[in-house]
Amino acid sequence: MKRFLNVGVLGGGSFGTALGTVAARCGHNVNIFSKTEKTVHEINNSHKNTRFFPDDIILPNNLKASSDISEVLSKSDMVIHAIPVQQSYDFIKEHRDKIPSNIPYIIASKGILLKQKKFFSEVWPELLEGRKVSHCILSGPSFAIEIMKKYPTVVSIGCKDEQVAKYVQHNLSFKSFRCYTTDDVLGVEIGGALKNPLAIAAGILEGIGLKYNTVTALVTRGIYEMSLFSGKFGGRSDTLYGLSGIGDVMLTCLGSLSRNKAVGIKLAQGQKLDDIIKTNSEVAEGIPTLLVLGEFIQQYNLNMPIFHTLYRYVKGDITLEEADFIIMSRQLEHEWELKI
Amino acid sequence: MKRFLNVGVLGGGSFGTALGTVAARCGHNVNIFSKTEKTVHEINNSHKNTRFFPDDIILPNNLKASSDISEVLSKSDMVIHAIPVQQSYDFIKEHRDKIPSNIPYIIASKGILLKQKKFFSEVWPELLEGRKVSHCILSGPSFAIEIMKKYPTVVSIGCKDEQVAKYVQHNLSFKSFRCYTTDDVLGVEIGGALKNPLAIAAGILEGIGLKYNTVTALVTRGIYEMSLFSGKFGGRSDTLYGLSGIGDVMLTCLGSLSRNKAVGIKLAQGQKLDDIIKTNSEVAEGIPTLLVLGEFIQQYNLNMPIFHTLYRYVKGDITLEEADFIIMSRQLEHEWELKI
Repeated sequence: MKRFLNVGVLGGGSFGTALGTVAARCGHNVNIFSKTEKTVHEINNSHKNTRFFPDDIILPNNLKASSDISEVLSKSDMVIHAIPVQQSYDFIKEHRDKIPSNIPYIIASKGILLKQKKFFSEVWPELLEGRKVSHCILSGPSFAIEIMKKYPTVVSIGCKDEQVAKYVQHNLSFKSFRCYTTDDVLGVEIGGALKNPLAIAAGILEGIGLKYNTVTALVTRGIYEMSLFSGKFGGRSDTLYGLSGIGDVMLTCLGSLSRNKAVGIKLAQGQKLDDIIKTNSEVAEGIPTLLVLGEFIQQYNLNMPIFHTLYRYVKGDITLEEADFIIMSRQLEHEWELKI
Repeated sequence: MKRFLNVGVLGGGSFGTALGTVAARCGHNVNIFSKTEKTVHEINNSHKNTRFFPDDIILPNNLKASSDISEVLSKSDMVIHAIPVQQSYDFIKEHRDKIPSNIPYIIASKGILLKQKKFFSEVWPELLEGRKVSHCILSGPSFAIEIMKKYPTVVSIGCKDEQVAKYVQHNLSFKSFRCYTTDDVLGVEIGGALKNPLAIAAGILEGIGLKYNTVTALVTRGIYEMSLFSGKFGGRSDTLYGLSGIGDVMLTCLGSLSRNKAVGIKLAQGQKLDDIIKTNSEVAEGIPTLLVLGEFIQQYNLNMPIFHTLYRYVKGDITLEEADFIIMSRQLEHEWELKI
């Protein structure tokens, strides 16, 4: 008989609420931590989260919320971490001793940590030093609203420990949500992080009126750069050709619901980056990720023409006219000869 | 100084006309062969091809047309072949002796030859036996109408002979059209061919009301099957992660202009395959390609769940309800463990 778990979800945003709903649909008892009292009250009393979802999206009965992090963590057999990535390092550091031992800690937040200039998978050992907590990365093409509406969704679970990966897979999969496992944690994380800046570039192209031929060329060459980046920094290149790579990239760069693409469209229309960031209620993770990535590119002199161009444009070093996002003016090349 | 070529284009359909226009924009003298007198007359007299393009699309002055295949071939320094793939084998066989020696013959038609059950690259040696004609495959994300409108477009040129590939690359690239080279001819061809059935599957999902999460999951897992297929049958797996793989797949599966996706949408709406084929003015190459691919899958017992499901559904062996295109009901798996 299947044993149902107590699943703690950290973060009552759109993705946290959606993954909590998946866990609840799998039969688990879900408790979402949110520091926003209004969200906690609404989830517990109306089974809704109207800050992020329409009024007709009803949350399962076995999903509740709490603003007490100790209560949520202490009872958890499994944790899903879905708070904004740039707040995550300090958050985990503050609460690390409350995380139960020997449970899977699934990170669903995506991006490079701006202050540490590292991925989660890189800081995890120091962050959880001396604690036995396996971390997994959950990533894949998954708009939160579509998960809520039970549209079939497929994601990757990256975890070094195969048994933990399978445990998470079996406990978070049901008929409209399917998890694949892989041991390339960093590759999965790189895919989830770098797709966001690429979506900004795709949005810029769309914003200046370009169409499918151009956007898909940009995205294809962008994924190639991402796969080389993964191969160079400790992940596998191939992982970028899976769900957390091309799958998520397609969704984010071509799907109409993407926040990061929207940032690109607004940039192309002449809006200032600061104004865009101020007026966005949800965070577009692509910008801080791009800022760190751009520093990597310059520091290690990486041959990543699309991401480098994007970085220079977003930083204001070049104009839109000078930027050549699909690298049409570069020397003609063999398709697979980039060396980063 | 750049030498301008005489470029013969075989086929006055949308893609032939678009590639002829690219060649003309590169400065070459282009002669399009079409057996449709009306098309020939219109191209030569009005610089338009209104069977395939809107009235405001004007063809370059250095592009003309002829219904005399001997005239077109005899003067060509380079040939672009863009006639429907299922007519191509017999066409080349009939006219092979008219093809000048030592020229690049660029095949832009996409699909598996239904009668021979083979790819072009496989039949080329026997088809051109004793003749010195290098064949290239041109493929990549490229809607013809966007090429005509000068939206930047990037494609792969697959050719075993690196010098020929570079020659074609330099003669067909200009500021809004860029060619990359690769020596994996068969891989490029497999990408161009198999993306069409996958687009039918994507259309089916769209037709039954599914959204981005589901379509991108299907496409990601479908590309994985394509890459395994390429690796097994003599191409490289990696090639499917390039322009003629994921690039073209994204365009065809997610772009709104795709004929093959439209076939899938109509199938999902309950239209009969025969009726769809009859009423389509342009050929959806995905259907014959799928029929050959399905036979391969069964003959070699290939583990390609998405393509196999699609084949069985299109053949009428299973209903839409029985088909499970995103394989949600299969056993939970590692992301990279399919073995075909």
